[in-house]
Order: sequence, then C-alpha cells, then structure tokens
Amino acid sequence: MKNYVLTPGPVPVPEFVMLEMAKPIIHHRTEEFEEIFYKATQGLKKVFMTEEEVLILASSGTGAMDAAICNTLSKGDTALVVNGGKFGERWLKICKAYGVNTIEIKVEWGKAVSPKVIEDALKENKSIKAILVQASETSTGVEHPIEDIAKLTKSRDDIILIVDGITAVGAFPVEFDKWGIDILIGGSQKAFMMPPGLAFIVLSKKAWDFNDKSDLPKFYLDLSQAHKNSLKKTSPWTPAVTLVIGLNAVLEYFEKLGLEKLFERHSILSEATTKGFEAMGLENFAKGCTSTALSVIKSPEGIDAGLIIKGLKKKYGMIVAGGQDQAKGKIFRITHMGYVDKADIISVIAGVEGILTELKYKFEPGSGVAKATQILDKL
Amino acid sequence: MKNYVLTPGPVPVPEFVMLEMAKPIIHHRTEEFEEIFYKATQGLKKVFMTEEEVLILASSGTGAMDAAICNTLSKGDTALVVNGGKFGERWLKICKAYGVNTIEIKVEWGKAVSPKVIEDALKENKSIKAILVQASETSTGVEHPIEDIAKLTKSRDDIILIVDGITAVGAFPVEFDKWGIDILIGGSQKAFMMPPGLAFIVLSKKAWDFNDKSDLPKFYLDLSQAHKNSLKKTSPWTPAVTLVIGLNAVLEYFEKLGLEKLFERHSILSEATTKGFEAMGLENFAKGCTSTALSVIKSPEGIDAGLIIKGLKKKYGMIVAGGQDQAKGKIFRITHMGYVDKADIISVIAGVEGILTELKYKFEPGSGVAKATQILDKL
Repeated sequence: MKNYVLTPGPVPVPEFVMLEMAKPIIHHRTEEFEEIFYKATQGLKKVFMTEEEVLILASSGTGAMDAAICNTLSKGDTALVVNGGKFGERWLKICKAYGVNTIEIKVEWGKAVSPKVIEDALKENKSIKAILVQASETSTGVEHPIEDIAKLTKSRDDIILIVDGITAVGAFPVEFDKWGIDILIGGSQKAFMMPPGLAFIVLSKKAWDFNDKSDLPKFYLDLSQAHKNSLKKTSPWTPAVTLVIGLNAVLEYFEKLGLEKLFERHSILSEATTKGFEAMGLENFAKGCTSTALSVIKSPEGIDAGLIIKGLKKKYGMIVAGGQDQAKGKIFRITHMGYVDKADIISVIAGVEGILTELKYKFEPGSGVAKATQILDKL
Repeated sequence: MKNYVLTPGPVPVPEFVMLEMAKPIIHHRTEEFEEIFYKATQGLKKVFMTEEEVLILASSGTGAMDAAICNTLSKGDTALVVNGGKFGERWLKICKAYGVNTIEIKVEWGKAVSPKVIEDALKENKSIKAILVQASETSTGVEHPIEDIAKLTKSRDDIILIVDGITAVGAFPVEFDKWGIDILIGGSQKAFMMPPGLAFIVLSKKAWDFNDKSDLPKFYLDLSQAHKNSLKKTSPWTPAVTLVIGLNAVLEYFEKLGLEKLFERHSILSEATTKGFEAMGLENFAKGCTSTALSVIKSPEGIDAGLIIKGLKKKYGMIVAGGQDQAKGKIFRITHMGYVDKADIISVIAGVEGILTELKYKFEPGSGVAKATQILDKL
C-alpha cells in the first residue's frame, strides 16, 4: 500500500530535495561546499527573521535545546520553564541534568501560557535568569504567545528568553530580531521539510553575553566554536554534508515561494483541517491558541483515538501521530509542515470520515471534506 | 569535470545507498523503522566485534568523542592522552572543556605510540582513570597498537581504555570484546561509506560502571538514555532517519561481503597505494605503523604537497586531502575507506604521476601504476 506520512515530524520531503541529496558526495573542506553552507546560513537568517548568524548543528532538535542551556546558563542559576506538554517537560529535564534550578509554570495541555502568569513569576523571583518556552508545543498543537513574553525580557539585560521553535520556525512568523527573542531553535524535519539530523540555533547579543559567563561544560555543542566557524562558512566538526545540501535546496525553494506565502500555506492548511473536522463534530484540541504548524484534533467522545490512527494506517496507508502521556487515546495530530498540499489534507479528512463511519460515529458523511475543500480554495 | 572524492572522510558513497536514502521518508516511531534501527544495531555489533549494544547517535564523530568523556569521567579525574596528531589533540581539548586533567604522551607525527611508554606512565601515575587514543590517526595515517595497550587495562577495574576508532572500525579489525577495549567510537562517513551525520559508540560493562559514577553533566549525549532506548529498538531523540536507513543498507552489503573480505579490501588497497608510490620514490608517512584505512604519502623533497593536491583537482577532478598544521605542504592523504575500488587507486596514482611529471620530478613514469596494478591483482 502506498504510504502517506502526515506526522508533525518527520514530514514529507520533496522529491527534488531527496534527489539533490542523492548526488555524489562532496568534501566539506572545499570552496564548493563552503558556498553551499554559507548560502544555507543566509537563507536560514530570513526564515529566523534575524540579522544574527544562524548556526547549523549536526544533531536533532534536542541537541540544540541542550546547547541553548549549557551555552548560556551556569550551575545553580534559576530558569522559569513553561511546561504545557512533552517538550516543555524536556526543558525541565535538561535543566535538571545541568544543575539549573527551575520554577515551573504548569499549563494545562491544549492551553497557551498567560504572559501575565509569567510576569507575576518574574516579579516574585528576581533571580530568574532565563525563560524557557516552546513557540509551538508539538504534543498539543498550542502556539504560546512569544511576542508578548518577549516584551517582559527585551529591555532587561539580566534575563534571556529561550524559545524552542522546532515546530514553529518556517511554519509561522517568529520574529527573532523584532520581538527581541534571545535564543531561537529550529529543526530540519519540521517546516524545513527535510529528513531529521540538523538543528538550527540563533543567539542575540544578550545571549552571547550570557555565553561569556556560562560555566557549564560543553564541547561538541559549544556554540562559540560553531559561531566562529560559521562566520568562515564552515563548522567546527564534520557537518552532515548531504543534509546541508538538501537544506540549501529547500531554502532556495522558500526564497522563490516567498516567506509570506510559506506562512500563509500553513495557515490555510491549518484552518481547513480544524474547520473540516469541526464540521464533523470533532474539536480542535488547541482551540483559541492553535499553532498553524500542525492540527491536533480530539477524538469523538467514547472513541479511542488509537482506533482512528490504526484505521488510517491499515485502510489508507496514512500515518498520523497520536497523543502522548495524558493525551494518549484522546487526540490525533496531523502535520501542516513539510511537503504537504491541499490533496493531502482533503484525503486525511476523508480517511477519518471513512474510519468514523465504520466506528458508527454519527455525523454527516462528506461534511468534513466539503468544509475543508471550500477553505482550501484560498490556497 | 567529473569529480572523484578520495578523501579519508567524507568518502564515496555507493549509489544504492544514496538511492535507498532518497526513498520517501518514514516515521521513526513505527514498527517499520524500529526494525531497520534494530537491524542496523545488530549489523554494527559485528563490525565493532562485540556482543555489547552499539549506540547510534545523530552527531558527527566528535559528538561521540565528547560523549565518551562526559559519560564516564568526573571533574578532576586524570586521563592519559596519546597525542600523535589532530585527533589526539582533540582528546586534550575535550578533557579541558570538562575539567578533566590530562597527562599527555606526545608522539611524533607519523609514528605509533609505544605501549611501553604507556605502561611506564601508568606505573608513575596510579590515579589515571582513562587512556584516550586513536586506533587510526586520520591526520597521519598511523595505526596505534590498541591490542597491546588493552593488555595494560583489561584486568584492572580502575581504568578504562577509550578508543577513537572513527577512521578504523570497518577498515581493519578492532576487536572490542576480545582485546578488552572499554569504549570504541565509529563514524558514518568513514569505512561505513555513508555521508556524515551519524556516530557510533559501544561501552564495556566496566565503562558502564564508570558511567554510574560520572558526575559530568550531559543530556543530548547521555549514553544511558541512548542505551535504554536502543534496547527497545529506538533512540531517545529523533534519529537521523534517512541516514539510519542508508547505514542499514551498507551493513547488509557488509554482511554479504563478509567482514574478513571487507578488511582484506582495505589492506590490499593500502598495500597497492603505498607500494605504488614507493616505486615512484614517494615515502609512506606512517611507515611501519600504517593504518590500512588511508594512505598518507610524503611529497618528494622540494615539492609542496599543495601543488600535487591542487593539480589533481584541476587536471583530473580528483579530491585528496592535504596535511594539517605541521604536516601542511608535506603530505597528501588518500582514502581506502568508502566505495573505493581498484580503478580509483590506479587512477589517483596515475594522476600523481601526471602532476609530478609536470613538476619535473625525476622518476620512471608508469612505475607507480605498474606496481599498484600488480598488487591489486590480489583483490
């Protein structure tokens, strides 16, 4: 059976990117590769909406999350962590590994953090050195209000805002320079429509000042090394050559498409998906704070989401993601990132209609597809 | 011009591997991928000559070198470092980053360390917790006597032997279990004939005991997490999916070829290259301790190696590596790792003959090719 990967990472990779990466390998210490590496960093700057150098790491996104902490904080520092899902939890674990104290803001899964709660926490604890948050929490489909949070840290020089944008950068605007974010992280297997294996990270001047004072040990993930080398169009360690070549091809495609169009695509795919499922009576799990990077949909009352996910795979070859931990069996998750187009969204909604009909769920067959198709006309 | 990559990493990747990786992406949390991941770890065990679990990291080789230190040692520990080239130096830098004290055994570039010198250092300093060494030093082409060094540590439970086998594992036998090595590291872009982006690492039971006591912080490179997950056919963070798929294809090829044949290939290619150049009067830089993973050849007296390297590139599209630091201008380096065959070796020797003729070096034209061709008949 033909497979359709529709998970929020890995995401479908365009054929032209796969084939670009399948060309004969080149050596990384050559002018030819340095030019590709340089072009990729320049393209990344646009997507990260910054004039600062965006660093390319040979690691998965978690490597860059780790690097964000061990390159800027010190043992005994205190970080304020927004925990509204699996990746918020990961911030807590990284801090624990490095002996960084944490103040946790627990956010109900499916809700966004309130900037007011962060503001109050900052007032209560003057020693907080960093705020750690996701721009888009992949486990819940929530977009957190980064622009508003940045207002609390932008004018202070004793605190940095570290944003995991792995499921955000490239999908919707996360304005690094304009909002005054201090660290922003991306990953190849998300909106960059690449296979996993590369992570991206950019630091503000304030974050580099923190780097100067950080006493946590690092070597492979030492960002000052990566920075120094990136300015010379290279990386301190052997880069993941083929992935950088693929990334460059994607960034050229983004350049042709235009950043606004890229963001608009995600936005329309998101609207079509959430409204399509709503027309069938299926709720958006992140209502009111929906990340346009993915749709997280609640399974109807009394129906285990696992049945929908398994049914999609078995009957149609469609791979969507389930819920993790407390959300297991309650939700399913569909990517808008990657090489995904109108027909993918229409067919996954049709697929869920097919499965729910089998499961005797009461709804008007065709209603989801009809609603989504209508919205997708905007694209 | 057609390019021929003949550098000791990245190395030529077989077309069937590139095309395998160019297939539509699959999700990593699926039975399908877990089976591939598991098969890859089983295949790695054979090449690492061990029954222990070989861990796959999404990083370059340096990531695994870093992990070897931060997962087993503690701040203030003392390590004995064999420094006979660029990668020996890297051990020193990693130790420094983590506050691990080092006793350095400086080895002249192009020579192997003497086990006796290590034995004496161990007698003199009872507090040494680890010996750090390369099985094959990429910058010089030297093979260090790992089996003999292991005899000094095997029966002691207070010291571990950490071997960077990045340019060794898969090229010649490094017998992890039999010799009693404690940590062995490999990298995808070497004898595994893959693009860069994956590192491999295996720990002995003694090394895992050291891991229990290590107080250095780590998260992304936390090997106990990688180990726990590897036993469940997965990785703690998103794996580099396409690279793991390619690796599996390579390991299947190794399985068909047989490990002995694989090692023999490198050995014959190495002999043909060094003897071929010797027939032209060009010396082997690592004479008497030659790693069969690559050939490091000295430029003739009075001829800058840079001229040979640039000439090969310009005239024939052949990319070989130069010397670094003190060896710059003195040597050139040719891989035997990767998808390299008889014709590649013959043509690179013919290429050097062509360049040296232009440079008015006195030798019998055809002598290098003739000698190499004769030896390559063994393959």
